[in-house]
Amino acid sequence: MNGQRVAVVGATGAVGREILTVLEQRGFALGELRLFASPRSVGDAIVFKGERLRLRLVEPGCFRGVDFALFSAGAERSRAHAPQAVQEGAIVVDNSSAFRMDPAVPLVVPEVNPAALDAHQGLIANPNCSTIQLVLAMRPVRDLYGLRRIVVATYQSVSGAGRRSIQELDAASRAHLGGATEPREVYPRGIAFDVVPHIDVFDAQGWTREETKMRHETRKILGEPDLSVVATCVRVPVFRCHSEAVHVETRQPVDLAQLAQAMRQQPGLCLLDGADYPLAREWAHSDEVAVGRVRLDPEDARAIAMWVVADNLRKGAALNAVQIAEHLCHVRVRGGA
Amino acid sequence: MNGQRVAVVGATGAVGREILTVLEQRGFALGELRLFASPRSVGDAIVFKGERLRLRLVEPGCFRGVDFALFSAGAERSRAHAPQAVQEGAIVVDNSSAFRMDPAVPLVVPEVNPAALDAHQGLIANPNCSTIQLVLAMRPVRDLYGLRRIVVATYQSVSGAGRRSIQELDAASRAHLGGATEPREVYPRGIAFDVVPHIDVFDAQGWTREETKMRHETRKILGEPDLSVVATCVRVPVFRCHSEAVHVETRQPVDLAQLAQAMRQQPGLCLLDGADYPLAREWAHSDEVAVGRVRLDPEDARAIAMWVVADNLRKGAALNAVQIAEHLCHVRVRGGA
Repeated sequence: MNGQRVAVVGATGAVGREILTVLEQRGFALGELRLFASPRSVGDAIVFKGERLRLRLVEPGCFRGVDFALFSAGAERSRAHAPQAVQEGAIVVDNSSAFRMDPAVPLVVPEVNPAALDAHQGLIANPNCSTIQLVLAMRPVRDLYGLRRIVVATYQSVSGAGRRSIQELDAASRAHLGGATEPREVYPRGIAFDVVPHIDVFDAQGWTREETKMRHETRKILGEPDLSVVATCVRVPVFRCHSEAVHVETRQPVDLAQLAQAMRQQPGLCLLDGADYPLAREWAHSDEVAVGRVRLDPEDARAIAMWVVADNLRKGAALNAVQIAEHLCHVRVRGGA
Repeated sequence: MNGQRVAVVGATGAVGREILTVLEQRGFALGELRLFASPRSVGDAIVFKGERLRLRLVEPGCFRGVDFALFSAGAERSRAHAPQAVQEGAIVVDNSSAFRMDPAVPLVVPEVNPAALDAHQGLIANPNCSTIQLVLAMRPVRDLYGLRRIVVATYQSVSGAGRRSIQELDAASRAHLGGATEPREVYPRGIAFDVVPHIDVFDAQGWTREETKMRHETRKILGEPDLSVVATCVRVPVFRCHSEAVHVETRQPVDLAQLAQAMRQQPGLCLLDGADYPLAREWAHSDEVAVGRVRLDPEDARAIAMWVVADNLRKGAALNAVQIAEHLCHVRVRGGA
C-alpha cells in the first residue's frame, strides 16, 4: 500500500488538531498531508512529525491528487467545499452534520456498521460525538436482545463546542473563583460551575438539534428506523470527554452475564467490571468507549441502565474519521485496487 | 399562636445553617431556639437575629419543652437522639435517611402528601433532596395521567455532601487551574472539572444507595408502591442546586397544554415557558422547584421529558423541614390545641 494523500480541512480547530495527533500516533501511512484553514490562519504553519506544514485556503483544484479529505470546519464549509473535493477525486469523510441524514451518504462507526461503507459515493459522514459512543455501547444490546427505547441524558464536555468554548470554561472558572466578571460569549448564561441543558438550537417541539441528531443518527447507524431515542443533552463544566447515563428498554429479557461477554468482545468498547465506572478526566485521550455500571432495571427484566464515557474529540470525532479512511484503505488493498 | 420552641440538631452543617436562614427569612414564630452541634463546636456561638446563641451538646433532658426538633446531623446521630427527643415531648423532623422507609414514619413533602402528616407519632422524615424536587414535578403528572416509569439522571451539586465537599470543589478547582495537586479527601477520584456517577455506597446489584433512596422514597411519597423509578445519580462540579433530566412514562396520553396548566397551579412548583430552562446557579436560594423543557416523547404519546432544578439545601432540605413544622402548627391552631 502506497502512502495516502490526505487533506485536513479545519486543521486548526479542536478536532482538526486531534486528527493530526491520531494520524501520527497510529502511524497512518501518509504520502502527503495538506492542511486547510480559514483565511485568518492562512500563512501560519503547523508542525507535523517535525515538519512545518503551511496552512492553505480551499481553492479550486486544491483536492486534486488527494485520496482522503477529512473535513472538520463546520456544516457550512462542508456544504460549500465537500462536493468540490469529491469532484476533484477525493473521498471525503465529513465530521459536520451537513450530510449525515442524506440517504445517499453512509453514516458510519466502523465497529458498528462498516458494511454501510460499501455503498459510498465519495462522501462518508462521521456521526455526532454523543451518538458514536452511544451506538457502540448499544450494538451488543441490539444484537442480543433488540431495542425498544433508549433514554439518554448526556454530560457533554465543552471541547465539543470547539476551542473558544474550552478557553471560556477555563477563563470563566478562574473569574468565578476570583470573584471577577466571567466571560460569557460562548455561554451567555454561564458554564462555570453550572450545567446547561441546551446544545445547539431549539425546534418548535422543544428539542434541541443535538438531541434530534442523536435520535436520527442512532436510528440510521443501528438500522432501526422506528427506534425511540429520547435524549436530554447537557453541557457540563468538563474540558474533555462526554459521559452518558443510558437507560435501554429491550425486546427480550437481558442476561447480564451474557451481555457482559458480548460487550467484552465488541471492538472499540471497554467494559469495566461490576460497579466500576469510567470518569471523563481519567478517560481523556483513550481510543475506546468505556462502559460501566451496567445494571438491570429492578422492575423490568427487559430494561438496563449503564454509564458510557468516551473522548469526544478522539473516538467521538477524529479517531472515527481516521478509522473510516483506514477501513477504506484496507478494502482497496483487499480488492487489489 | 404562641412562639414555637425549636431545636436544631446539627446547626453548624450546610443544612443546619440553611434552616436558621429559612426560619429567619420566613418569620417563623419562634419562642425559643436551641442549637445543638458536635463536641468540636460546643462552646462556639451562632448569631441569629443579632443574638449570640451558644452551641450545645445533646444531653438527657435537652429537648424538654421543645415543640419541634429539626435534625440534620446524619443518620447515625438521628438514630441515637431522635427517639430521645420524641420521648422528651418534641416533634422531630428528621432530615437524615434513618427513618424514611419506616412504615410508621410519615415521609412528607407538604405540597405533595400533606395528609401523611395526620398519622405521625412524633417523628416525621424529610425526604432526600433529589427525591423532593422529583416528586413535586411528578405530582401533576401522576394526578392527570398516572405513572408507569420514571427514568431520571441527576446532576447533583457538591453541597448535598456537606461543607467539606463544597470546600473541596473550590480548592480542587483552584488547584487544577493552577497546575497544583488537587485535594482528594471527599472525592478520591476528583470532582474538579469532572462528573462522578457515584453518590453513597453501592449494593450488590450495582445501584448506589442514593439511587435506591430515590426509588423507594418516590414510591412512598407518591403512594405508588410498584412504580418503576430508575435513577442514575451523578455528582457534578456545581456548588448549589440539583438538576435532573427526567423521562416519565404515563398511563394515559399526555396533553401538554393541560399538564402545563396543572403544573402552574401546583404549589411549590414554577413552570418555565416553552423551551426555557432553569439553571442551578440562577436558581440558588429559591424556594420553588423549577421545571423547564417539558416536551413529548416523539414516539410515545404516553411519555414526556423535562428538566427539574431546585436548591438542594433549601427546598431539598431546610425549607421542606420548616414547612413540615409550619404545617403542623397550622393544624394545631385549626384544631384549637
